[in-house]
Amino acid sequence: MNDVPQISIIGITGLPEIKEGDDLGSMIVRFAQGQDTPLASGDILVVTQKIVSKAEGRLVDLRKIEPSAFAAEFASHSGRDARLVELVLRESRSVVRMDAERGIMITETKHGFVCANSGIDSSNVFGEDYVCLLPEDPDASAEGIRIRIRELIDSPDVPVIISDTFGRAWREGHGNFAIGVSGMDPLKDYRGEIDASGKLLRVTNIAVADELAGAAELVMAKVINVPVAIVRGYAYSAVDNASIAPMLRERSRDLFR
Amino acid sequence: MNDVPQISIIGITGLPEIKEGDDLGSMIVRFAQGQDTPLASGDILVVTQKIVSKAEGRLVDLRKIEPSAFAAEFASHSGRDARLVELVLRESRSVVRMDAERGIMITETKHGFVCANSGIDSSNVFGEDYVCLLPEDPDASAEGIRIRIRELIDSPDVPVIISDTFGRAWREGHGNFAIGVSGMDPLKDYRGEIDASGKLLRVTNIAVADELAGAAELVMAKVINVPVAIVRGYAYSAVDNASIAPMLRERSRDLFR
Repeated sequence: MNDVPQISIIGITGLPEIKEGDDLGSMIVRFAQGQDTPLASGDILVVTQKIVSKAEGRLVDLRKIEPSAFAAEFASHSGRDARLVELVLRESRSVVRMDAERGIMITETKHGFVCANSGIDSSNVFGEDYVCLLPEDPDASAEGIRIRIRELIDSPDVPVIISDTFGRAWREGHGNFAIGVSGMDPLKDYRGEIDASGKLLRVTNIAVADELAGAAELVMAKVINVPVAIVRGYAYSAVDNASIAPMLRERSRDLFR
Repeated sequence: MNDVPQISIIGITGLPEIKEGDDLGSMIVRFAQGQDTPLASGDILVVTQKIVSKAEGRLVDLRKIEPSAFAAEFASHSGRDARLVELVLRESRSVVRMDAERGIMITETKHGFVCANSGIDSSNVFGEDYVCLLPEDPDASAEGIRIRIRELIDSPDVPVIISDTFGRAWREGHGNFAIGVSGMDPLKDYRGEIDASGKLLRVTNIAVADELAGAAELVMAKVINVPVAIVRGYAYSAVDNASIAPMLRERSRDLFR
């Protein structure tokens, strides 16, 4: 078994409903210990956006949102909530696709993520009129959790990925994607390495942070309460000042915006 | 530890270079046993496209390909191999984007996958003039491996996913995607279920086969020889006549073609 590559993904269960100001780093450490899977050196944490946003006070009461004429117009044609349409527009820096007939809004968020509804949703949010925005700076959110954990436990410096569930072009089904990262390189670049046949690899740059986020989703079923996962055994590249930015394709290089 | 959700991903190492006609199912069973991680009930196998294509004789000698005038024209502007351009076009049913300046061809393959170069590449293929096509029918490839394994070992009926590495719209870095499936539902539909806050989930349909493929990639580093992974502990939905087709968005529903 010595040379067998193996990774474990462990869900952290039992966290209570998260409120603004909650200390997520401390809660993660405590609940990981409580279920006998304490954080260890080499672990990576994947934390769902929803609890990060809740801890950062990113819930919005739609009753306080005044829709613009444009938002009201799109809402009336699409059957969507005009206040939510307004909020989606406010949280975007550009609209990639709008389809009133099907009620679809694909936007580029202020952070640069291309996703439906600027990442705003109401699932797992209590209260009919409340929706949840993405964290303002998910890299900083990841960094904050990582630093807090480093204060609390001795040995490991655990990289943190903030994940969210987005749709994809061309394929049905949603996937989990990384929206913030701290402590590890989100990409693994094989370009310049030699493959098993002796050829130079020219293209392959793997989006490991997205693959880690997707792997974590497998233990984070939507309807049960598993908002955090430990990925154990993946040999990540530790870096300072990590950011999700290198994973966001520049508009000038993008054929689909 | 009883209620802690946990998944393991185990790479299968040591397989020799695959040749046309090799019995992949039997090799996978043998090498999994040989490294003391025999297949067990509940396991899912993720098998990279490259070894499936090799076993199915999908290597092509470019010296036998006669480029069309169109392929030659694109090749001369993009600096690409005209024979490869020709093959990419032959393996596609439509071109989604071509950019001669950057040498990019995004096509829709005969199967319906939207990816660069119709999924053709030369990495890990021996011989300067040889490239590798996708399997002709990756669902059938997955089914064949699954049935062969069921003949060889007793208890488990192990679902099989064939994976390949594709680029994505909007994001840098490649990811592993499912291109064929047998024995499990590639999607997990939460629509109609109730979330932790009591709200009806309206949208979420998770592309689990892609997440399993991506998770497997984490143990399948490109430059070493790990072409197969076991995913252990994921509660998949067993189905007969599984297919990747429901995961391929219909053109009429797609905003990015």
